[in-house]
Amino acid sequence: MNYRIILYITGWVFNLQAIFMVLPCITALIYQEEEIYDFLIPILICLAVGIFLTRKRPSNKVFYMKDGCVAVALSWIILSITGALPFIISGSIPHPIDAIFETVSGFTTTGSSILTDVEVLPKSIIFWRSFTHWIGGMGVLVFLLSLLPLAGGYHMNLMRAESPGPSVSKLVPKVQSTAKILYTIYFGMTVMQIIFLLIGRMPLFDALCITFGSAGTGGFGIKNDSMGSYSTYCQIITTVFMIAFGVNFSAYYLILKKKFRQAFAIEEVQCYLGIIAAAIVIIAINTRHLFFGIGTAVQQAAFQVGSIITTTGYSSTDFNQWPSLSKAVLVLLMFIGACAGSTGGGIKVSRILLLCKAAGKEFQRYLHPSSVKKLKMDDKPVSHEMLRSTNIFLSVYLIIFAASILIVAIDNFDLISTFTAVATTLNNIGPGLEVAGPLGNFSSFSYLSKSVMIFDMLAGRLEIFPLLLLFCRGTWKKF
Amino acid sequence: MNYRIILYITGWVFNLQAIFMVLPCITALIYQEEEIYDFLIPILICLAVGIFLTRKRPSNKVFYMKDGCVAVALSWIILSITGALPFIISGSIPHPIDAIFETVSGFTTTGSSILTDVEVLPKSIIFWRSFTHWIGGMGVLVFLLSLLPLAGGYHMNLMRAESPGPSVSKLVPKVQSTAKILYTIYFGMTVMQIIFLLIGRMPLFDALCITFGSAGTGGFGIKNDSMGSYSTYCQIITTVFMIAFGVNFSAYYLILKKKFRQAFAIEEVQCYLGIIAAAIVIIAINTRHLFFGIGTAVQQAAFQVGSIITTTGYSSTDFNQWPSLSKAVLVLLMFIGACAGSTGGGIKVSRILLLCKAAGKEFQRYLHPSSVKKLKMDDKPVSHEMLRSTNIFLSVYLIIFAASILIVAIDNFDLISTFTAVATTLNNIGPGLEVAGPLGNFSSFSYLSKSVMIFDMLAGRLEIFPLLLLFCRGTWKKF
Repeated sequence: MNYRIILYITGWVFNLQAIFMVLPCITALIYQEEEIYDFLIPILICLAVGIFLTRKRPSNKVFYMKDGCVAVALSWIILSITGALPFIISGSIPHPIDAIFETVSGFTTTGSSILTDVEVLPKSIIFWRSFTHWIGGMGVLVFLLSLLPLAGGYHMNLMRAESPGPSVSKLVPKVQSTAKILYTIYFGMTVMQIIFLLIGRMPLFDALCITFGSAGTGGFGIKNDSMGSYSTYCQIITTVFMIAFGVNFSAYYLILKKKFRQAFAIEEVQCYLGIIAAAIVIIAINTRHLFFGIGTAVQQAAFQVGSIITTTGYSSTDFNQWPSLSKAVLVLLMFIGACAGSTGGGIKVSRILLLCKAAGKEFQRYLHPSSVKKLKMDDKPVSHEMLRSTNIFLSVYLIIFAASILIVAIDNFDLISTFTAVATTLNNIGPGLEVAGPLGNFSSFSYLSKSVMIFDMLAGRLEIFPLLLLFCRGTWKKF
Repeated sequence: MNYRIILYITGWVFNLQAIFMVLPCITALIYQEEEIYDFLIPILICLAVGIFLTRKRPSNKVFYMKDGCVAVALSWIILSITGALPFIISGSIPHPIDAIFETVSGFTTTGSSILTDVEVLPKSIIFWRSFTHWIGGMGVLVFLLSLLPLAGGYHMNLMRAESPGPSVSKLVPKVQSTAKILYTIYFGMTVMQIIFLLIGRMPLFDALCITFGSAGTGGFGIKNDSMGSYSTYCQIITTVFMIAFGVNFSAYYLILKKKFRQAFAIEEVQCYLGIIAAAIVIIAINTRHLFFGIGTAVQQAAFQVGSIITTTGYSSTDFNQWPSLSKAVLVLLMFIGACAGSTGGGIKVSRILLLCKAAGKEFQRYLHPSSVKKLKMDDKPVSHEMLRSTNIFLSVYLIIFAASILIVAIDNFDLISTFTAVATTLNNIGPGLEVAGPLGNFSSFSYLSKSVMIFDMLAGRLEIFPLLLLFCRGTWKKF
């Protein structure tokens, strides 16, 4: 293990965190809030540690996948702990576990909250809470890669460990350029959404926070009823952008390159949009009696479907009251998740697609035992490695899911609350059903359950393996 | 496709079904019930069709895996439809879908019932209902193989398609001898349980029916409260035998051969017993306040754990009232299921074990990228084929699970009822929670949902692929 480089990278994460916190400081200045000091202290701590760790560039450039995973996992833990400091110091969320839950929920773009009343918080704290979504969405190490001219072969290993999905497609041969392109698209789309929301007369502060939440597919609301009180126009804009941020960013790169046909030929994107359309139709028909007219039903269905499949987690209505079929559809969408290479969570459409294709091939094998058809995705053969890791991802995912349910069940909430609370945190969505439903929150769970969910949120965001490696004895052995 | 052999085999299934129905006829004679005629009519129909189809032995012996799957799937559908006739003719269950649901639930050893009051039924009908469990447990084609001296290479393909688990271990080189050994062990253990229950002063009729249910891991009760009203002794005997019938039968063969060490070294069996022990401990501690003394808690926990993990589905208490942790444990056990090569259902312990091992190996790969350790089970390397088919089984299983939930959710029962009703039928268990709980039944579901569950029960028992192949266009194409 190359500890020097890992420390160097985490040092930069400390520095970045200090820079990120300047924004809520400015917010505090604008609104003349005292909380500015609650941000200055963490900034100074981060800078002190960060500057110390990054004072010398490491010379040993040997950096394996394992080191990449450890660096990414440690970075996210550092982000979570330092990010929780303003909540604790300001007294907005006094208990450390609660504060870390909220921060992890922010950075992992989950959006589950332990707060019962968001609206009483100072503006700067609300801003920081929403801003963590934006940072976490595209990933802080991808951001680092786009800035730092780190030499050596470890770019790819860092990016692979942090990016969602079974495979990372480098858009251009250089990793640093890929990271830059990704952040440019991300930034551009964020600005677009802010402008569209401002046109709908949403106040600037709200527009910023709502956009951070949908860009990162996070879902922290800034009102107690999430998005329910905003105008239909703003809800529709948010719906469109939530769905857009769940698309594989490769598609946008292709569109920027004017390769429109290629962009729309990506199988994952087609499948993703198909699932969304089907889910909207089913739910709209199933809930039409709850709304005035089919138009509203479609709009509300679209909002909730977009919010859940992209794992954003905003809600514009209390879907806890919906019929079982609609709730079942939403629970399934929770697991499917968004596209790989987007800011969304879940299992990812490409994995589902891959598993379905593999199943189809198995039938072929029964019918034609001697056939040797290759599994293909986007007309390219799927490597055996990728299929294996997808299968194993599914198994480990289910194991973590089961273990978490067992621990959270000790709290003795009803099974639906327990089940959906775990599903929503592991998939980085936000709201569950019943106790954890859109109008509920996570404050009533025990600290043990909250700790499990903190683990689940990080595991879900980092796609399990980087985080689990931290707990392997073998990782820390010398060999 | 070799239609001649398939028809010949299904012909024998008709004949066997006629022979099986002689037993409830005798019951009707003993209890002097009029229902004897309700069995004679199906017997005559089965014999007529059966004798016609088996009048000539087919000459073409080419028989692929595909043909085996189709033969098995068709045989089970024939069993279900002809087996439902006595229920319909006698008027015990007038609606055909209900009658087929009950029969499929019997043969697939699920044990889910649409009957609200079992105790009013004629004895012969109750006997037939329980006896279907015994037939379905070890499999009707395995029975056929043990009797018929069928020449040609199709023995193995039939056995593989009907036996539960990711791989079929031939105990002895000849398939026919393996089938004979399996049925001998099965028969012997059945007789033992009957004797033990008779010692506990259970009436012979009850002892027979209860034993059929636990031997096949079925779970149709003959009282409305399932096993609740029997003595503690009888409950304990049933617990022990339920767990015993969930063990891989290879272990018993090794014990018969006096290879005790080998028998207890089977990893799947160790893992199975370990899971049972852990589940009993957790549930006993979690529910101890509900019972007088920890002894009763352990006994009741053991009964329910044994019943659910082996997918038998008897209940001795209303576990719907248990705390969430205990219910969550039971739901997880539903999915794990019993050992491969036993009469139980579910995903099977060996598959879970295999998936866990594959996940562990993936960690190794992260730590030592160049290692080439082979995956091993019982010290034998696991073939790549088997791992692949296990992974694909899991995917298809989850897809069917999700699709079924969506359809059953249209009935608008609460999500727990919907979820556990599908889980319990797909895993061939019996009771679910809430509406489908131990004191509830499946009568209130719509015929659409019941049809879906009929499909799920058959898919679960035949481990998905044989049944699904029937619906593949490619299966019926000539090539």
